[in-house]
Amino acid sequence: LIPKTLEWKNDALYLLDQTRLPLEEVELRCGTVAEVVSAIKCLAVRGAPAIGVAGAYGVAIAALNDPASVVSAIKDLAASRPTAVNLFWALEKMTLLHRAGATPAELLVAAQEIEADDRERCRLIGEHGAALLPDEATVITHCNAGALATAGIGTALAVIYRAVELGKRIKVYADETRPLLQGARITAWELQRSGVDVTLITDGMAAAVMKRRRVDAVITGADRIAANGDAANKIGTYGLAVAARHHGIPFYIAAPFSTFDAKTAHGEAIPIEERDPSEVTEGFGRRTAPPGIAVFNPAFDVTPADLIRSFITERGVFPATREALAKAMAER
Amino acid sequence: LIPKTLEWKNDALYLLDQTRLPLEEVELRCGTVAEVVSAIKCLAVRGAPAIGVAGAYGVAIAALNDPASVVSAIKDLAASRPTAVNLFWALEKMTLLHRAGATPAELLVAAQEIEADDRERCRLIGEHGAALLPDEATVITHCNAGALATAGIGTALAVIYRAVELGKRIKVYADETRPLLQGARITAWELQRSGVDVTLITDGMAAAVMKRRRVDAVITGADRIAANGDAANKIGTYGLAVAARHHGIPFYIAAPFSTFDAKTAHGEAIPIEERDPSEVTEGFGRRTAPPGIAVFNPAFDVTPADLIRSFITERGVFPATREALAKAMAER
Repeated sequence: LIPKTLEWKNDALYLLDQTRLPLEEVELRCGTVAEVVSAIKCLAVRGAPAIGVAGAYGVAIAALNDPASVVSAIKDLAASRPTAVNLFWALEKMTLLHRAGATPAELLVAAQEIEADDRERCRLIGEHGAALLPDEATVITHCNAGALATAGIGTALAVIYRAVELGKRIKVYADETRPLLQGARITAWELQRSGVDVTLITDGMAAAVMKRRRVDAVITGADRIAANGDAANKIGTYGLAVAARHHGIPFYIAAPFSTFDAKTAHGEAIPIEERDPSEVTEGFGRRTAPPGIAVFNPAFDVTPADLIRSFITERGVFPATREALAKAMAER
Repeated sequence: LIPKTLEWKNDALYLLDQTRLPLEEVELRCGTVAEVVSAIKCLAVRGAPAIGVAGAYGVAIAALNDPASVVSAIKDLAASRPTAVNLFWALEKMTLLHRAGATPAELLVAAQEIEADDRERCRLIGEHGAALLPDEATVITHCNAGALATAGIGTALAVIYRAVELGKRIKVYADETRPLLQGARITAWELQRSGVDVTLITDGMAAAVMKRRRVDAVITGADRIAANGDAANKIGTYGLAVAARHHGIPFYIAAPFSTFDAKTAHGEAIPIEERDPSEVTEGFGRRTAPPGIAVFNPAFDVTPADLIRSFITERGVFPATREALAKAMAER
């Protein structure tokens, strides 16, 4: 029902161009590293796990096109977006293989394995997370942590898809997620197409929904989780977590271990991408703010571990504490 | 510097058409009650105090055009928008005068007095509120509670204008305020034009700004304040108040007494307008959500009194308690 986020075919990486959703389903062919970098930068492919997979394919493409270009390709890919750690995780895997003398064909197989691996992690996240949702649960989610953010069925939305599959009646409120409206354009579209009961709200409505209607859980994805459990995710997630805490609603983050970054001690150390002011002032094809206005446009915010009830991962559900994280990461 | 929100001239009510801001400054002439009702419904004039003044002029226009139409005109005006109580406050004043036999000319004078009275209330709100802001204060505001929401210099923004006038260096973050972007289109424009240091953010960024940067106060207007201090204001205000509480930042509501509604016991009893889903799905001239998607689009939310540090009014600053409100209202 939902087109593939990314697919390797005809010697190239084909992406569903997410900048065109929800009105157009257009495939974008990436046959060069520059095209992969550009697709990541412009958000044709987005979502931390999907960016990681795309990055791995980017390295394979470089090797297939010109084995001498692999090192500089990895550098270019690493410079595309700074916050989601899955990209660096995937590039590190590819770098090690390249240094160990992997052939272009072997690098392609490695990228395909990263893709298959992400698909399996998503499935397990759904499996573990679905148990947290009671029948008739109402869930709020932010941005898109669904199939379109991964190679599989998503992270936060995997939990919902699996719960629905198990026969639970789940109602979802999707924050539209300004400035780029991934909630309205992608999550609403993806859930609607999958037959999940979804209602679109603006970001500023989430707290009022918590107050006026029963909300059982807030579930989002993450772009990078620090060693102490602080989690960076799409801007607006932190305010949503604060509102959930105020209303006594559990706030969960669903993410694969490729999103956990043991090298970053805490949230303050996570690099936060700031994007072009025009995303805020003319994000919809016409100018909606006065010319010359100052804009602050961080693409992510950091939710401190103490606002997170649990992480939902492919290895199970565990609390957002340094100890639990260290233990779970040691199992790798 | 800022065009007049509304003006009586050439036997008609002229409004600055706020749906066209910030790119066009177009005057809208209302010579009939139907035109005033339509202007209120489509938000050409908006902001609780300004709606009240426009409603009063609407009654005067009815009387001048056809004295027999006043009662039905009042009914039509009262049905234009349900939440802001200033409209009903102004219509009640006009109704009493009409019943007491006021001539059309006298009703016009009464509308002009309501306008002048609102201007003076704004001035006093600024005077009382400015004392609350330290030099170099950073303030977050939501929606537009400025000159464009009143007949004077605004409510929340009156506080800022007066503080700046007194030589204080004030920095403002303006929430863009989805769905209709009054923060981006009107507040940012109005503050920029007045030379106030303003930075535009999306609604979902406010909590992150509170966490990452120093914020000294959150100040908004209100559309209706119940007898117990619960306050309805533009959707998103409640989440902002929750975030302010989480960060220990005082949350103020600036409003004239025409916004206080002694007849409404508490926030749950305030009627909340729900507006067309298209404001969320195609609010920018093009569709940004999938066709057929369910949307929840309340135009307002209610902030409970216990999240409000103080009310800033034309009679001074006082706490959001039933007792303080009753005392202040008795002074009327």
